[in-house]
Amino acid sequence: MSKISPLSGFPELLPAQRTVERDVIASLSRTFELHGFANIETRVVEPIDRLAKGGEVDKEIYVLQRLQAERHGGGPAPTAELGLHFDLTVPFARYVLEHAGHLEFPFRRFQIQPAWRGERPQEGRYRQFTQADVDIVGRDELPFHHDVEVMSVMVDALGRLPIPRVSFQFNNRKLIQGFYRGLGIDDVTDAIRVIDKLDKLPADEVAAMLVERVGTTPEQAQRCLELATIRVEDTSFVERVRALGVADDLLDEGLAELAEVVEACSAVAGDRVGVEANLRIARGLDYYTGTVVEVFMEGYEHLKSVGGGGRYDALASDGRTTYPGVGVSFGVSRTLIPLIADGVLSGSRPVPSAVLVALNAEEDRAASAAVAQGLRERDIACEVAPTPAKFGKQIRFADRRAIPYVWFVQADGPDEVRHQVKDIRTGEQVDADPATWTPPEADLRPGIVTTIPMPSTHTSTTEENQ
Amino acid sequence: MSKISPLSGFPELLPAQRTVERDVIASLSRTFELHGFANIETRVVEPIDRLAKGGEVDKEIYVLQRLQAERHGGGPAPTAELGLHFDLTVPFARYVLEHAGHLEFPFRRFQIQPAWRGERPQEGRYRQFTQADVDIVGRDELPFHHDVEVMSVMVDALGRLPIPRVSFQFNNRKLIQGFYRGLGIDDVTDAIRVIDKLDKLPADEVAAMLVERVGTTPEQAQRCLELATIRVEDTSFVERVRALGVADDLLDEGLAELAEVVEACSAVAGDRVGVEANLRIARGLDYYTGTVVEVFMEGYEHLKSVGGGGRYDALASDGRTTYPGVGVSFGVSRTLIPLIADGVLSGSRPVPSAVLVALNAEEDRAASAAVAQGLRERDIACEVAPTPAKFGKQIRFADRRAIPYVWFVQADGPDEVRHQVKDIRTGEQVDADPATWTPPEADLRPGIVTTIPMPSTHTSTTEENQ
Repeated sequence: MSKISPLSGFPELLPAQRTVERDVIASLSRTFELHGFANIETRVVEPIDRLAKGGEVDKEIYVLQRLQAERHGGGPAPTAELGLHFDLTVPFARYVLEHAGHLEFPFRRFQIQPAWRGERPQEGRYRQFTQADVDIVGRDELPFHHDVEVMSVMVDALGRLPIPRVSFQFNNRKLIQGFYRGLGIDDVTDAIRVIDKLDKLPADEVAAMLVERVGTTPEQAQRCLELATIRVEDTSFVERVRALGVADDLLDEGLAELAEVVEACSAVAGDRVGVEANLRIARGLDYYTGTVVEVFMEGYEHLKSVGGGGRYDALASDGRTTYPGVGVSFGVSRTLIPLIADGVLSGSRPVPSAVLVALNAEEDRAASAAVAQGLRERDIACEVAPTPAKFGKQIRFADRRAIPYVWFVQADGPDEVRHQVKDIRTGEQVDADPATWTPPEADLRPGIVTTIPMPSTHTSTTEENQ
Repeated sequence: MSKISPLSGFPELLPAQRTVERDVIASLSRTFELHGFANIETRVVEPIDRLAKGGEVDKEIYVLQRLQAERHGGGPAPTAELGLHFDLTVPFARYVLEHAGHLEFPFRRFQIQPAWRGERPQEGRYRQFTQADVDIVGRDELPFHHDVEVMSVMVDALGRLPIPRVSFQFNNRKLIQGFYRGLGIDDVTDAIRVIDKLDKLPADEVAAMLVERVGTTPEQAQRCLELATIRVEDTSFVERVRALGVADDLLDEGLAELAEVVEACSAVAGDRVGVEANLRIARGLDYYTGTVVEVFMEGYEHLKSVGGGGRYDALASDGRTTYPGVGVSFGVSRTLIPLIADGVLSGSRPVPSAVLVALNAEEDRAASAAVAQGLRERDIACEVAPTPAKFGKQIRFADRRAIPYVWFVQADGPDEVRHQVKDIRTGEQVDADPATWTPPEADLRPGIVTTIPMPSTHTSTTEENQ
């Protein structure tokens, strides 16, 4: 084996960095569970024809072939063509259809797994990346209050993470569609697609495109642009939309839904999460049917959204039964890998050990191992020094791993054993009883070190993960 | 979307079954951490030439191609050819080489991830399966006591799981090689391969093959067979091997090593794990260089081994530095999926919720949600009923999900609210204060229900996972 170079788009974490990711996943998982969401894992492969349904992502799908089949030029293997899933929604929809007879509806699930896309890697965009999804799916029907519920859960979950402030920007397909319809625009979907270009093009060009491509009047185009500029942190958008003078039943429904989502999410948001109605949010408006959300992170707007989701009235269907769903996805890798690279997040140590039990001589390994086993029985992670080196060297061994304590077992006489423990950060060394000594809670497990000011209950997510 | 059939070899768990897998993974992880092992995750892909090095597994490797590249007949994508890893050892060896400059040695790591093999599916053999690996890797050298350590850790970890009794069967490559060499057999590796056939062929046929294929004398063949019959639960194998009258330095070293491993593992094994020296164990003897182990599960011997591992003096090498390693792998899917299918293991409920907060009327949703939020703040998972159905129907809703408690919020007067909680298993309904009521520990989280008699400290792994 020769020198290894990293594989672009497939980032890997060092052990201390991995503690950050594990703690974040544990914190997310616990919040989802507290709200009654069950965890599932789906297989990572789906039949190609199911993955390729959307059309747009075709080129990004990784297809699997068995090596033998390929090498022998024998064409595809006899099994159906399989590809790696590129998100967690397609496999979840398939899971619901396949296992519907064994599930209880409404079915709340969370799923935290990698997904794969063969696109060009860049910061925040990887070929393998982990996502955390929460969805609620009903059979035949799914009342609107579940939109409020699932969005509040993700607000609660992200508010507990030691990451920069995130902003949930909500919109509603019914609101937009009703407004356009009330204005007299025929091709609503096409109009939405054009408005979506406001990110890249100046407003007057977008207005011109609405006239040329969608066939609106200049005045209709102007109203569409006015709608898209509405962005507020409360429910005052309702009055501002009404002031534009468009009347439509679907618009009314959309306004009421969006107001309820914004109000409920604001109530759980706290300081670390922003909640806005942003009527320019258009991503997915062509397939979502009600609530739509995109999540952005302060100072990391160049990553685009770090999460998103919405309501889909037909998440899945087997022809007879339709399963409506509402959900939101958080990009774990997209968020954490840039934050780790920037030093905003790091792990407090690369090993779980809180204690290194020192070794006097190789013959004394059993004595040191017995101390270690006693500590473990009281849930204190530890390891025994690999060699009976000079104590200074054993302390440096601990120091390089940020292990906070070194334990010494010294024969004080023929039958006398003296136990001492040293906090290598302060140098303080005290007598200790291996049957009762316990490190302070904060030293017990590795945790997240963050440069983000967190409220006191959230300085470490370590406890929450347990 | 039409009817969905399962994909052979890619088993998926229902939500309650998934709690079993999560609890087992959490228990394994915690034991590994208590022994100072750091968790890592590697990307799931490796370059084909690295995966195919072994030769034997070629046909089982899944190769990735981007859909576009394939569809357009443009040959492989411009990036290196990638395949899914088929175990966790190849990616770990690559991780060590790639990140060596950022790791501290000896490096203890555990890794719990899926792997993929395109082989024919059968019970216990899947195309996607999860493994749990622990390894210790050194730079240039790795003292033998780490063999003892890593094997003891897995004994400790499996002894804590609610699974049938497992048996660790140890052998040692030095012992076997030294014995054969001392006997005067030249081609030791070939002789080992023939002895490995004792599983499938009668002893006299194996003896004949040793004479014909390896060129031993009939007497040498007889001694090899005698060695292979030695299988004991203590260190008495040392005397029995010596009684065969073969003298060799490497044999002595192997005997001493095996005795030490058996002794140390027996000391931590308890009742739920068997430890044996079994001199017939030959799997991997061609690439392992010292300790070898295979793990079997009582009543499930038809699965073959549920775990295995050993010592490899050159886990990885970059040409200048060699990284010796020792490790053992446990087949999580291979073990759990048959146990779940047989009803030996199940989850206590398919949802994390311990409480369903009942709903009087849709207008009262906020009141019920407030109770739920209060319970969550005290780490009690709960959900609010989806509709204000009759209470009998709401109780059946909880019952179908095995949620043990239903909470009622009743207006007793204009400003009087009465809270009651019902244990739906006993029917007992009592007044309760949402600010202080807590369910018994055993009801707080879903756990594993097992038909295996477990010692009292291990009836549920739920607590250990936290």
